[in-house]
Amino acid sequence: MDSEYARVDEARLHEYTAAILRGVGMDGPGADTVARVLVVSDARGIESHGVARLPQYVRLIDAGVLDPAATPEIERESVTTALIDARNGMGHVAGDYAMRLAIAKALTHGVGVVSVRNSNHFGIAGYYAMLALEHDLIGLALTNSSPLVAPSGGHQAMVGTNPIAVAVPSGDERPFVLDMATSTVPVGRLEVYARKGLPLLPGWAIDQEGNETLDAAAGRAGALLPLGGTAATGGYKGYGLGVLVDLLTGVLAGGLYGPLIGGLWDATAPSDLGHFFLALDPTAFGPVDRFQARARDLLARLQAGERAAGVPEILVAGEKERRAHDDARAHGVRLYRSVAEALDALGQRVGLGALPARAEES
Amino acid sequence: MDSEYARVDEARLHEYTAAILRGVGMDGPGADTVARVLVVSDARGIESHGVARLPQYVRLIDAGVLDPAATPEIERESVTTALIDARNGMGHVAGDYAMRLAIAKALTHGVGVVSVRNSNHFGIAGYYAMLALEHDLIGLALTNSSPLVAPSGGHQAMVGTNPIAVAVPSGDERPFVLDMATSTVPVGRLEVYARKGLPLLPGWAIDQEGNETLDAAAGRAGALLPLGGTAATGGYKGYGLGVLVDLLTGVLAGGLYGPLIGGLWDATAPSDLGHFFLALDPTAFGPVDRFQARARDLLARLQAGERAAGVPEILVAGEKERRAHDDARAHGVRLYRSVAEALDALGQRVGLGALPARAEES
Repeated sequence: MDSEYARVDEARLHEYTAAILRGVGMDGPGADTVARVLVVSDARGIESHGVARLPQYVRLIDAGVLDPAATPEIERESVTTALIDARNGMGHVAGDYAMRLAIAKALTHGVGVVSVRNSNHFGIAGYYAMLALEHDLIGLALTNSSPLVAPSGGHQAMVGTNPIAVAVPSGDERPFVLDMATSTVPVGRLEVYARKGLPLLPGWAIDQEGNETLDAAAGRAGALLPLGGTAATGGYKGYGLGVLVDLLTGVLAGGLYGPLIGGLWDATAPSDLGHFFLALDPTAFGPVDRFQARARDLLARLQAGERAAGVPEILVAGEKERRAHDDARAHGVRLYRSVAEALDALGQRVGLGALPARAEES
Repeated sequence: MDSEYARVDEARLHEYTAAILRGVGMDGPGADTVARVLVVSDARGIESHGVARLPQYVRLIDAGVLDPAATPEIERESVTTALIDARNGMGHVAGDYAMRLAIAKALTHGVGVVSVRNSNHFGIAGYYAMLALEHDLIGLALTNSSPLVAPSGGHQAMVGTNPIAVAVPSGDERPFVLDMATSTVPVGRLEVYARKGLPLLPGWAIDQEGNETLDAAAGRAGALLPLGGTAATGGYKGYGLGVLVDLLTGVLAGGLYGPLIGGLWDATAPSDLGHFFLALDPTAFGPVDRFQARARDLLARLQAGERAAGVPEILVAGEKERRAHDDARAHGVRLYRSVAEALDALGQRVGLGALPARAEES
């Protein structure tokens, strides 16, 4: 492969990923679920949460701090709510199960809320929110995560990048899908900028003394800033959103939260992360076709707005990722060559042939 | 009064405000509700949404585009959800009614979601979210509003500052109360800075061409930036949150949304705003005392974190406002002298004596 990128057929990447997961101890349905979440992440262009994470998941399994064979269990349930014990299994399996349960409750009672404890990293939050779209429901997914963000005024990383994902059906192929970390940028951005020797932008990170820094290495040693950056530019709002996610996940479900959560991919102890899923049926408030027509109208009006100089188009949440997925369906899922090679190595370990990847055409 | 500020006893300010509202056509309970929302806003230090807005509300009533005598009506209901027609009455009345309905549903079914259409400006969203605290519930309140924020890449104001408010009970006097606009700053901030001739900060506003500007007058003529500022510092996230609020309020409830909403305090047509309220019972997921103990623990850990140089303390959402309210209880609600004078004028109009305000001691 000559290019920096490889392309892999989506279905083949799914099957290869699922086979690796079966090889490290997952059952068939569980492996399928995890593969689905990881591959859709890569297909949508969110490579930081895709199959590139497989080696880390496998490391946690090898270290015995994540149980690949665990199946989630309902601990407490009402017609509209449930608490799930993920039993320290893969977060994707618990998340998929919990969101589908929230959807089932919403379809019968208008709204469903399901909370998960004792879980692990679950990939992109957007995947779970988007499950609601198949039923014309509104979906919300939250998770807490390893502390990487400093509270406004602090200099220690005490809050995760705690994402918020919401999907709203529009009745066509272009739903609204917001999937955002509550930090300004993901920690991987600092790593990439440090490697390339590029300066950071204001609002991204602070150094170990708590001062905003444009030095990527200093930021990596310090902490991420919450969405909004410093207090003067509204950073306390991003900080508030991050803490809110912790309150609705780890705190509500009875798992770890905030600074109690271990470091990213820490293999010394179970993660005990918490998730939160909500599904809401728009038909509780009126005819669904009229709701969807209004949603389409709002999104179309925003996209038809006057553009600032040099801006080719105005986007709405989820549009960029939808186009990436269309491209992946047509031309294969785009992976870093190094990621494809790491997958190959995992495949060999579990007795698979080479990953059927080809160099990206330039 | 010599000082720039006056102090008014909280109960007297409430009664004076309610009497004005009765004088312009509200019934007793409705006037009490609106006064409660406005006075608590001032008491919590959010003067932009307090009694300073009374002249604008009265202007809308005088113009015949807001019906002060309207009572909200349930249009559609299930055990967990409801759609309310505010019948073009005061937003505070509809909001208070709707949130209490969501709370009642959550107390019996774990979760309640109530949506409102055909409404008006409802003051601070935090008031409604905080109603849930009295029942040890988690409360969420959203509203859409007049377009003041440009979509990322656009230069026209097409989205409101659409606030998100969430209150989480902690079992003590210090709940978590996040009440944030989804723009970086409120439009009033630009007005104050323009008046004082101060430069704006990056991430606050764009000019009429869509370029970020530090000139307050140019920003006022342009549009607010969403939380996060420009796209490079995550502004598309704040833009996404603002659109999300529109989707869950005006779009879901069947009112106006986005650029279809009239200008702030436009007295030529009814506002037809939408609100969204959700109440969630933590006991659905486990014992409430353990939930609250974890919440207190998280908030205490954040506040005990190491501070950046020159920062006196780390706060959590709602703490600053709680302290302001304590101060207002002890020393009277703090009003701008000009606001107290405007109240006096309204009081005279409806036959009241002078507002019992005293100059703030310096």
